[in-house]
Amino acid sequence: MDVGFPASSKDDFEAVKMIAMEVGNNVDDETGYVPVICGMARCIRSDIDIAWEALKHAKRPRVLVFVPTSEIHMKYKLQKTPQEVLMLAKEGVTYAKAIGFKDIEFGCEDAGRSDKEFLYRVYGEAIKAGATTIVFADTVGYNFPIEVAGFVADMKANIPGIENVIISVHCHDDLGLANANTFAAVQAGARQVEVTINGIGERAGNASLEEFAMAVKCRGKDLLGGLYTGINTKQITATSKMVADITDMAIQKNKAIVGANVFSHASGIHQDGILKHKSTYEIMSPEDIGLTQPQKNRIVLGKLSGRRALNSRLVELGYDLDEQSLDEIFGRFKEMAGRKKNLYEEDIKSLVCETQIEKKARA
Amino acid sequence: MDVGFPASSKDDFEAVKMIAMEVGNNVDDETGYVPVICGMARCIRSDIDIAWEALKHAKRPRVLVFVPTSEIHMKYKLQKTPQEVLMLAKEGVTYAKAIGFKDIEFGCEDAGRSDKEFLYRVYGEAIKAGATTIVFADTVGYNFPIEVAGFVADMKANIPGIENVIISVHCHDDLGLANANTFAAVQAGARQVEVTINGIGERAGNASLEEFAMAVKCRGKDLLGGLYTGINTKQITATSKMVADITDMAIQKNKAIVGANVFSHASGIHQDGILKHKSTYEIMSPEDIGLTQPQKNRIVLGKLSGRRALNSRLVELGYDLDEQSLDEIFGRFKEMAGRKKNLYEEDIKSLVCETQIEKKARA
Repeated sequence: MDVGFPASSKDDFEAVKMIAMEVGNNVDDETGYVPVICGMARCIRSDIDIAWEALKHAKRPRVLVFVPTSEIHMKYKLQKTPQEVLMLAKEGVTYAKAIGFKDIEFGCEDAGRSDKEFLYRVYGEAIKAGATTIVFADTVGYNFPIEVAGFVADMKANIPGIENVIISVHCHDDLGLANANTFAAVQAGARQVEVTINGIGERAGNASLEEFAMAVKCRGKDLLGGLYTGINTKQITATSKMVADITDMAIQKNKAIVGANVFSHASGIHQDGILKHKSTYEIMSPEDIGLTQPQKNRIVLGKLSGRRALNSRLVELGYDLDEQSLDEIFGRFKEMAGRKKNLYEEDIKSLVCETQIEKKARA
Repeated sequence: MDVGFPASSKDDFEAVKMIAMEVGNNVDDETGYVPVICGMARCIRSDIDIAWEALKHAKRPRVLVFVPTSEIHMKYKLQKTPQEVLMLAKEGVTYAKAIGFKDIEFGCEDAGRSDKEFLYRVYGEAIKAGATTIVFADTVGYNFPIEVAGFVADMKANIPGIENVIISVHCHDDLGLANANTFAAVQAGARQVEVTINGIGERAGNASLEEFAMAVKCRGKDLLGGLYTGINTKQITATSKMVADITDMAIQKNKAIVGANVFSHASGIHQDGILKHKSTYEIMSPEDIGLTQPQKNRIVLGKLSGRRALNSRLVELGYDLDEQSLDEIFGRFKEMAGRKKNLYEEDIKSLVCETQIEKKARA
């Protein structure tokens, strides 16, 4: 768990310390598993000192030390030469090790816009100094899957000692590519992914935990040679709602996996398919993500709905109608749907009622 | 413009007809350009008849006829054999041509889960019958970029007559991959993309127009050999807001391109970078998408902010403080930020005021 940046504020320090003490000493009864608690630090001694003070309370503390490696970040933000950056990386990891960290993650910020040769040298120095995980960060959400996969493959081929460390990937969603990039990195050999619930994070946010977890669940068998995550996907819905509430970041209806509409079907053709066989239009089931809403809410009755969807709802509501009545009601239904966006139970009931009254009047 | 499904309801028919008459006869004064107006139809004569009645009023009418081609869709939804589906495709396109359509798009629904050999035969028959555009649809959002690119490349290699038609791609976002898949298809040779504003559509929606347009703007030069779209990206913000209002589909804050947060920077490290040089953390500018919010709102002052961001805001507010005062105010600022999420102008002003009063009292 990446839990904060202890040197950034007293508040963050206290939060990281509390998590290290409480969550970081939480031993799972069954498996004996204890979570790794990780805090961030720049390659600055005081940052690393403060991180240690906050994290040392955890059973399995980890620090992430990082430097920017793109020309634009080194020149304009850090105002240091590549040679100085290389030294920072080396010194940061060395100091983290000296101070007590055994589990050291080293990240290159804006790696995706960095010169490859230089980038690999920096990672190499960090590994030599004791890094156990190295992070490729597409900090500004600039890269495409094919590029991220290329970076990871090249890292494996060009960094001495890479076989002894874990490659991690950190993607942002500025161009809507964070999940595709994260998955592509894993296909190429990354074995740690940095994801957030609901994809929250700077700007357009980070890769979404739920999108990645479900992508692996749906396609890990054929696209990742059977790789899987340890995530209990049935907790996705509840966790997502909790995070949305706490962060005051509402989730849009068409957000992948956790949006309110992802198991809704509006068009008649889709509704017909779903009623015949769910997998025609759904590649995962609501139960997979812990959603318990009943099936009947998933067919949205409206102007795009077909006869079959209407009949299915009528049967659910307890009506048993002959073909002629159904025809009449369907005609009225389409007419009403032209005026009103979504039709509810009461609308359907009133349509049946009207039709039956008129039928009696005619008789 | 894909504008509707005329056979699905009287309402849709009228809407398509109205768009065909009005938008479809709108000649651009400068360029002489007239938009193509396209309506959907199943491979059923009555659907195609109704589509023609609605669309014939446009200067450049187009029909999209489609059939499902995956085993699961053919077997469970359509309840037809592959041989029957092949006939439907041929007859649908032939009939559309006979009735008057010159511009015929033919789509395979659930193409992404279809048997490749069969899929290519269906496209081949449609082209022979007169289709001018063929659509690869990942109807259920199941595919990955590498697969979509593979399909498009294989289509080019295996379908007779493919060189005379346009390949179109239609992706859904169920696994958060719609934009990556759309872009990958274009890299492989697709030259029409099916996208929607804000990514609205069935379930988790379709690929987003704004994400695709900005991906091409940011990376078309190096990843697409210079391809570009004709989209005026400065209209993105206004159009997105209008569609969100009309559809009652609010956009989440961290939605790529059009979310409220995409040009906001919360962490001190990011704020420092942005203040020194914008491209350290932004790959596009707010002006590119027609956003006119002032620069000063983009730096969110909070517990993650650094000294530099605070000073920049103080200067904006008209304060000119010495180093010692800045130190004192920064200390108070961090403390207040630990209690309050976002700090506003009034908070900053009150901090300065308090500090100066105490300073006077000490003097």
